[in-house]
Amino acid sequence: MSRTFKLTIAYEGTDFIGWQRQATGTSIQGLLEDALSELDGRPVAVTGAGRTDAGVHARGQVATAALDRDIDAASVVRAVNNRLPQTVRILDASLAPEGFHARFDARLKTYRYRIWNADVMSPFERSFAWHVPMRLDVAAMNDAAGMLCGTHDFAAFQGTGSDTQTTVRTVLRSSVEREPGGAPLLVYDAAGEGFLRHMVRNVVGTLVEIGRGRFSPAWIGEVLASRDRTAAGPTAPAHGLFLMGVSYETRRL
Amino acid sequence: MSRTFKLTIAYEGTDFIGWQRQATGTSIQGLLEDALSELDGRPVAVTGAGRTDAGVHARGQVATAALDRDIDAASVVRAVNNRLPQTVRILDASLAPEGFHARFDARLKTYRYRIWNADVMSPFERSFAWHVPMRLDVAAMNDAAGMLCGTHDFAAFQGTGSDTQTTVRTVLRSSVEREPGGAPLLVYDAAGEGFLRHMVRNVVGTLVEIGRGRFSPAWIGEVLASRDRTAAGPTAPAHGLFLMGVSYETRRL
Repeated sequence: MSRTFKLTIAYEGTDFIGWQRQATGTSIQGLLEDALSELDGRPVAVTGAGRTDAGVHARGQVATAALDRDIDAASVVRAVNNRLPQTVRILDASLAPEGFHARFDARLKTYRYRIWNADVMSPFERSFAWHVPMRLDVAAMNDAAGMLCGTHDFAAFQGTGSDTQTTVRTVLRSSVEREPGGAPLLVYDAAGEGFLRHMVRNVVGTLVEIGRGRFSPAWIGEVLASRDRTAAGPTAPAHGLFLMGVSYETRRL
Repeated sequence: MSRTFKLTIAYEGTDFIGWQRQATGTSIQGLLEDALSELDGRPVAVTGAGRTDAGVHARGQVATAALDRDIDAASVVRAVNNRLPQTVRILDASLAPEGFHARFDARLKTYRYRIWNADVMSPFERSFAWHVPMRLDVAAMNDAAGMLCGTHDFAAFQGTGSDTQTTVRTVLRSSVEREPGGAPLLVYDAAGEGFLRHMVRNVVGTLVEIGRGRFSPAWIGEVLASRDRTAAGPTAPAHGLFLMGVSYETRRL
């Protein structure tokens, strides 16, 4: 009788091909499956709340794994971390509720995209923020970002190669702020039940066009209405993006 | 007729042998000298405000270099950064006042040491903070840290291999705080005219002994009075330490 653990995972995506296991290259899913399989003495599959692309980071990815071995959650954290590179860490483990599914039961995903807005890039941010040296109008970017809140067809912001059945998504938060503390950091925060492939990065690329003054904030409404990917701005680079967390509905018994 | 530029430099120390040029290995001073020599078409020497050890980072190291070439400060920033790895960045350049010396004229150096105080290390902090999983008493650490303020003989906190004439230093700030924002980060801030070799790291190693409850805050006074390096705690690892900035007296004309 196996027990399913819910794992909360942080990783620096820099050196990986992304979350998902593929034929070649090192993926976070693959590293976790290898570590858990070694721990359990048999092949263990890991199911993530969602994929992240190559170079994208996570502070709170969620995944499940079923283990046969009689082991408590704290020992899972320790044993798996001992088998992982330092760039991937299990932050927390707990027994998953009966029937829990990391992907299908996810109710809210939060993403953060970081922009370093100064002439010279910080050596400490080179893997964790997009360097945009041009002057950016943060208020205009935030006005535009807010127009994406609500339920819309986000086809214009979907990357190629997707096979989703619908491009309609509900965005609950979409805002641009200057990070407090005095560093020249802009932060785009997005929250919603789900996002299309490359959606956050395509939105950020579009917001930067507006921040540079090439388009007014209202332009983003036109882009959205067009449902045409070529109408939007370029895809912002992967290394500025963080999957911050995944929330699950509180189950009432 | 050469002109001397004052450079403000940030670097991630992880992959370097430290600030100072040595016979083998890559140093920050060496990288800067190579880049500036290429720019000026003749050998250029770089004088830093102070050395940093292998693995130690800087957000505001200061150095000077005299260039023959007729070039403005903004062009120096651009041209040198183009010749440096991304882990070393010139943040600012300006013409140095007549007779300015980066080391001898420094009046205040500020250092920060970062401690990640949680069971699991963050993958984003592995090169930028010391992982101390044990529970730490921050108030006790701050009480002890404060006792180092003032002018004292800091021989007990001096690393081996120093050839300083005196081990008396004046410390203007010495405090431990929890970093705001909710992350399990403790920050030790130190400011003073100058510090002995390994002094900040030896102080932090001693403060962590107090934070763990092995000694009371008053113990640090005994360590200080002993002037005996073996009385203090271990040397905290290099990768948690940042040279934050160097201040110079405002010259009155």
